[in-house]
Amino acid sequence: MSRLKSIPGGVNAPRGFLSAGIACGIKAKGRRDMAMLCSRRPAAAAGSFTTNRVQAAPVRLDRERVKKGLLQAVVVNSGVANACTGSRGYSDAIETARLAGGFLGIAPALIAVCSTGRIGPYLPMDRIRKGVEDLAGIVRRGGNPYAARAIMTTDTRPKEAAVEFWVGGKKVRVGGMAKGAGMICPRMAVASRPAGATMLAFIATDAAVSAGALRAVLGRAIEVSFNRVTVDADRSTNDTVLLLANGESGARIPAAGRAAALFAAAVEAICLRLARMIAADGEGATKSIAIEVRRARSPSDAFRAAMAAANSPLFKSTLYGQTPNWGRLMSSLGASGAEVREEKVRAWLGKAKIIDRGRVVPGAGRIEIRKKLLRFVVDLGLGPAADTVYTCDLSPEYVEINKE
Amino acid sequence: MSRLKSIPGGVNAPRGFLSAGIACGIKAKGRRDMAMLCSRRPAAAAGSFTTNRVQAAPVRLDRERVKKGLLQAVVVNSGVANACTGSRGYSDAIETARLAGGFLGIAPALIAVCSTGRIGPYLPMDRIRKGVEDLAGIVRRGGNPYAARAIMTTDTRPKEAAVEFWVGGKKVRVGGMAKGAGMICPRMAVASRPAGATMLAFIATDAAVSAGALRAVLGRAIEVSFNRVTVDADRSTNDTVLLLANGESGARIPAAGRAAALFAAAVEAICLRLARMIAADGEGATKSIAIEVRRARSPSDAFRAAMAAANSPLFKSTLYGQTPNWGRLMSSLGASGAEVREEKVRAWLGKAKIIDRGRVVPGAGRIEIRKKLLRFVVDLGLGPAADTVYTCDLSPEYVEINKE
Repeated sequence: MSRLKSIPGGVNAPRGFLSAGIACGIKAKGRRDMAMLCSRRPAAAAGSFTTNRVQAAPVRLDRERVKKGLLQAVVVNSGVANACTGSRGYSDAIETARLAGGFLGIAPALIAVCSTGRIGPYLPMDRIRKGVEDLAGIVRRGGNPYAARAIMTTDTRPKEAAVEFWVGGKKVRVGGMAKGAGMICPRMAVASRPAGATMLAFIATDAAVSAGALRAVLGRAIEVSFNRVTVDADRSTNDTVLLLANGESGARIPAAGRAAALFAAAVEAICLRLARMIAADGEGATKSIAIEVRRARSPSDAFRAAMAAANSPLFKSTLYGQTPNWGRLMSSLGASGAEVREEKVRAWLGKAKIIDRGRVVPGAGRIEIRKKLLRFVVDLGLGPAADTVYTCDLSPEYVEINKE
Repeated sequence: MSRLKSIPGGVNAPRGFLSAGIACGIKAKGRRDMAMLCSRRPAAAAGSFTTNRVQAAPVRLDRERVKKGLLQAVVVNSGVANACTGSRGYSDAIETARLAGGFLGIAPALIAVCSTGRIGPYLPMDRIRKGVEDLAGIVRRGGNPYAARAIMTTDTRPKEAAVEFWVGGKKVRVGGMAKGAGMICPRMAVASRPAGATMLAFIATDAAVSAGALRAVLGRAIEVSFNRVTVDADRSTNDTVLLLANGESGARIPAAGRAAALFAAAVEAICLRLARMIAADGEGATKSIAIEVRRARSPSDAFRAAMAAANSPLFKSTLYGQTPNWGRLMSSLGASGAEVREEKVRAWLGKAKIIDRGRVVPGAGRIEIRKKLLRFVVDLGLGPAADTVYTCDLSPEYVEINKE
């Protein structure tokens, strides 16, 4: 979409959004562990959440709060997930929002709360209280550039993206930040239609958009971005994506037409960039991998086949090595549940053909796979449907990180 | 089942079965890579095969041959899977059986062929021919004890088990051998009723049993054994289980009654022992893990919940470490697709409670998990169904083995 121009600034790029990140003492060694995102005025809001049956307290709270379609601030902590914490955990989430509301002078009902980190422990509310107070002070003074760092857990780098475009002579900005490196796989079946979100991502825009339109745009954007990313097939209890529109650009996005399409494309672009950053920064990852399946019998077949390859530990282990075993790609496609006819399957890595009519191409096992970015195209030769999934390789470091 | 007595001898324990294993040159360094199992007389036979849509040539051949319910010998090679090898691979499988038939003096239609190893390459038919000839000679002279070793790929040890029991004054034996360490996960959905088999396993008995009864017994045995094992969630193109009954004990097993139940229990016991050996010998495994889910709403919910925990890389990584993160067990249950109500979930590791009403029990993160064998019980508190799945931990060594 050439009308979208990439700009710096992440979630702070849209006018009227301020953010900050600090260390409040949840994590050891003074590492940053708390962030705040705040709009100067109440913003239309949409959210999407994990479909895990075990839902963290902040997910249960935000799911309720976003229903009214209006939010003004988000408080995020890393280090502790506030999941599997029962009614006390839920009270802690409410209290965190109440504290933030007090310090910011905002109605608590307009504040969402997100947590990410270890499942099980309660939030250390004394530190949270101090953290919220400090964050509110910093945000009131203009914020700081550390929010995207403060929401990180095992991430090795912050994830931010922003674009701008013109609507009726007015410049509109969409920007976001995200975190996620492990326990990353939105949902397993494309059949389950309720939009399952993944990881933590916060998208802000200064366009004026109705909450209903935001919901529709976010739902579609998530489908082709966060719901197409997997690191380890593990779906989290805390996955949350929030989209806030405060209207400060003065540009109103109607329900349909060119501006609506442009806005939807901008949100999609931001979600996709953040999602691909998450795949590339998967725990222990040495390579970023895109798997596109073409000519599948149906959209769900295309999704299943791509996701099966992206979740195969054997295929991902071979991509960590230097001498690829492409037979494992065939096996993962065959086990995906999608309609697959061996003799019809073709596949390419970049421009090099690796599978031809179901056979591993002679010499394809010697193809260099030292590049940081590998793009596979799989042609099932059976129908009209296509899909693309993003992942990373599986390295011994993944286990080292997660053995704790 | 106290009437079953464990005995040595594996697949050779039943009378009239001979086996051998040799190195024919498929694998490097003179490692054993070819085996033969032969009955003195034609045996009633049943088979169960992978549900992967990409099926190796020998699977396609055996699936046809076992339909007639009669087999006398099985030829197995390791090192090359003869999968994704098209019509030439299929001809090679037929030719392998034809050669074995010639050397053994058995109709080729009574010979099954199995392969396991790398997907993609063709069988080296010159070496296969020589190997089949050597094996036939050894089997004719009484066999050797190396068959269970010769079918191994990344297995670190051979897998054998045998039992005996009495039927009407006659001693009946059931024995088997199996291989499998990676690409181990029978099938993902319990809904797909066609029995999906897993890995290579060969069960022999000297009971006289009809092919129809064998099929029923094998189908039930696989459901509670091989279909309850996962190492890495990857379902192979070559999974095969064959059950042969040659009647040499003189004991006839009727379709129903005490003897039929005893025979079914014996086959189940052998399948379960072999399956658990596979789980314990998973690639890179340091621990053998059993996960029992109780009081699930339905049998498929019990299976899904247990399988989701057994396939969670995060849960399995934490079991490789020494400081367990039990929240990951909760998360994997919640993401399983089974009905889960957080506040109802309880779980134990051995006798130690680790989850109580959805909360991680204080101090449970310090439980010693250095034992080689970990048994989890998860109580979902929702219904009458139960299931048990076997797996292993995930170690960095898994990736090292599979990066090739």
